[in-house]
Amino acid sequence: MQSTICALASGQGGAVALVRLSGPRALDLLKLLTRKADSLEPRRQIFCTLYDDKTVLDKALVTYFKAPHSFTGEDVVEFALHASPYITGRLLELLCENGATPAKRGEFSERAFLNGKMDLVEAQGLCDLIAAANRAAHRVAMASLDGKLSERLGEMKIKLTELLAQIEVRLDDVDEEMPRLSPEFIRTQLTDVLQNIQTLLDTFSVGRLIKDGLKVAIIGAPNSGKSSLLNALVGFDRAIVTDICGTTRDTVEEMLELNGQKIILTDTAGIRSHALDVAEEEGMRRSKRALEKADVILFVLDTSRPVTAEEKQLWADIQQENKRTLIVLNKSDKPSAGTPDLANLSSYTQFTVSCKKGTGIEFLKNALTAPLNSAPEDGLVLSNLRHYEALLRAQTELETALVQLEKKAGGEIYAEHLRGALTHLKDLLGEVTPDDVLGVIFSKFCMGK
Amino acid sequence: MQSTICALASGQGGAVALVRLSGPRALDLLKLLTRKADSLEPRRQIFCTLYDDKTVLDKALVTYFKAPHSFTGEDVVEFALHASPYITGRLLELLCENGATPAKRGEFSERAFLNGKMDLVEAQGLCDLIAAANRAAHRVAMASLDGKLSERLGEMKIKLTELLAQIEVRLDDVDEEMPRLSPEFIRTQLTDVLQNIQTLLDTFSVGRLIKDGLKVAIIGAPNSGKSSLLNALVGFDRAIVTDICGTTRDTVEEMLELNGQKIILTDTAGIRSHALDVAEEEGMRRSKRALEKADVILFVLDTSRPVTAEEKQLWADIQQENKRTLIVLNKSDKPSAGTPDLANLSSYTQFTVSCKKGTGIEFLKNALTAPLNSAPEDGLVLSNLRHYEALLRAQTELETALVQLEKKAGGEIYAEHLRGALTHLKDLLGEVTPDDVLGVIFSKFCMGK
Repeated sequence: MQSTICALASGQGGAVALVRLSGPRALDLLKLLTRKADSLEPRRQIFCTLYDDKTVLDKALVTYFKAPHSFTGEDVVEFALHASPYITGRLLELLCENGATPAKRGEFSERAFLNGKMDLVEAQGLCDLIAAANRAAHRVAMASLDGKLSERLGEMKIKLTELLAQIEVRLDDVDEEMPRLSPEFIRTQLTDVLQNIQTLLDTFSVGRLIKDGLKVAIIGAPNSGKSSLLNALVGFDRAIVTDICGTTRDTVEEMLELNGQKIILTDTAGIRSHALDVAEEEGMRRSKRALEKADVILFVLDTSRPVTAEEKQLWADIQQENKRTLIVLNKSDKPSAGTPDLANLSSYTQFTVSCKKGTGIEFLKNALTAPLNSAPEDGLVLSNLRHYEALLRAQTELETALVQLEKKAGGEIYAEHLRGALTHLKDLLGEVTPDDVLGVIFSKFCMGK
Repeated sequence: MQSTICALASGQGGAVALVRLSGPRALDLLKLLTRKADSLEPRRQIFCTLYDDKTVLDKALVTYFKAPHSFTGEDVVEFALHASPYITGRLLELLCENGATPAKRGEFSERAFLNGKMDLVEAQGLCDLIAAANRAAHRVAMASLDGKLSERLGEMKIKLTELLAQIEVRLDDVDEEMPRLSPEFIRTQLTDVLQNIQTLLDTFSVGRLIKDGLKVAIIGAPNSGKSSLLNALVGFDRAIVTDICGTTRDTVEEMLELNGQKIILTDTAGIRSHALDVAEEEGMRRSKRALEKADVILFVLDTSRPVTAEEKQLWADIQQENKRTLIVLNKSDKPSAGTPDLANLSSYTQFTVSCKKGTGIEFLKNALTAPLNSAPEDGLVLSNLRHYEALLRAQTELETALVQLEKKAGGEIYAEHLRGALTHLKDLLGEVTPDDVLGVIFSKFCMGK
């Protein structure tokens, strides 16, 4: 028999805590704790006393969801408790003493998936939705949870399945009684699916940035105004700045929100710590690493003085990275020392700003976050690496099928590649995904979900 | 019209977040967000889509509680959301854009109180219950929330009200048509209530310790084993040790749980920080302050060496405090240097322990927490200073009434003191408490309650 699992589903602290219980024994356990034998009307919140031996543990609002009409598809009981650490801890203890087991991360979602309440893409959307801290990430996750992405993938799956069926039925048709499928027809079908796949694949670059955040490196010589630029960017949006500690002491990332998008400033340790007297070599090493990790580079130049040898070196390094780079011509409030003497600078977008006066910052900010706004309005965007890779594999299979078709290969050859593509689509939706892979996917979910 | 208030009621993080909305516009706002006009069955959880302009904000479980059958006594709507910081933040924004206001701390409870859903003692119990981190504090708070304490106070109130009525009716009876009340009858009634008050007042010393924690100072000369004792106490209970930062850098308190009770070790900074090379004077200053703040003193002596001049000084300081003191004779694993040469030591309870080997620690721990176990089983304990002071005032009034009675003073004299006592009881229950005092009381509640 399936076990009955329990976990705290709400966060720590607050006034109300939610404990969730799911499995065949959920209702029994509820009756045991409330000492009520009468039948419970599903989905109706009842205020009842929870007993712990001879004492009252809590008076709580309790809801019973009858299988299959619950989140997991099993019998579910939800306890809205007074959020005392003692009460929540003791309730979980009592449940486990009476046969429940503590839920693993994502185990409620995993059961919902296994009971057909959602597919794997929707489950991933759920996980992403809970983590979403801004409007863009929320929209993308909601499209996934909502089944919009699954629907698009499902359409491809149906198209390929029907095509495969038509091919396979002819492979069995040894007497060739059926009319042949025209290569033109097969080609059109494949090209159509391939186009849909490409459209989705194209969204991954922006989807990944929306979900994980745009990594920005602020690069410049000492005193070019890196620290002021950071403050100007942050300050003008009154963003919440949080320190993210890296694995090593000297890598510090800061997360902020600009125009409703998640921005991660990489390696700000060197920028923030004015007091820190780093050796030149160390400074260069840091810039180098920041460049490697960045999605966008902001190259800050102090236009009130001529370009230094160090800046020429930095510029060479930046160009080598071949990444999206914005040139920030800082200190426009001071007299200019002329156009910076750096090769090829004019082929990059330049922003004349004064961090001191705040001029030009808004333009820079909008340019910085512009690529993130290119996500389609419906939020149909790939943001998950697993999904991207599976689609990429499906694409490869279909392209190979197309090549075989042109080569006039036998039906059994390109049928094989169609089957391969279908497997990848099904894996994406969780239809053929092995248990251990599922385990890894759900273990990344949050506790109590 | 009363405003409609909203707040996050659950803690930060987790998988599910609870937003609570209370007031006359609660149902309107729910209909606005769900775009459903149909009537909602109270207390039934419905799964519905919450809209934010053209986009879906969340799909959430929503419950409507119809006034007066809700926590606050008003119309209440509870949203069980996906716990994304974006979703909870945006929902509160949307509610406020449409006429709701953010709830102040304790404002839901305040409304519940104002609407007669609970008295002030029960409300205080609710606040204490949420903060309760151990079994004892939970029991005391539950007795208060449950109305047991209110019931006891209510009995006294009724008794005094009836007595006062009998006295007053005779004050108006100018023709003396009614039989006189015997002084003996009045005395019995007053003494009975006074006895009940005293019983409750006596519980405050332990109630306060259960709720706020027992403050323990570990005092001893360097190398007597203070740090080892701390670790032995903590380690054997596998307690959660949390640092509480004091107002100044050098006062550090640690909270732990021993035998299900809250223990606060005061001024452990000097004990923990071996590395910290504090001057002798500073060390003495710290011990002094720890002594002043403590409820119990643990005086640690190293029995393997003779008593030092410093220890004699410490002992003199400790005795001056006149507090509960337990003597810890440490290092029993080493040869003893004889009975410590300290005056009057034998009149204190002594514990022979070896922190190194762990012997004797269990006895010490039990002795330390023993006084906290003296709370009555029913949890009827005063733990709130406001309650204690109000009862103390009522006691004073009744004692004065008794004195006046013995002096054969006129009925109007002791009637006045009875009225005084009644006012204090009513203040305790919140029946005559001024608005500003209520405001202060509820502002100490947690957010969302």
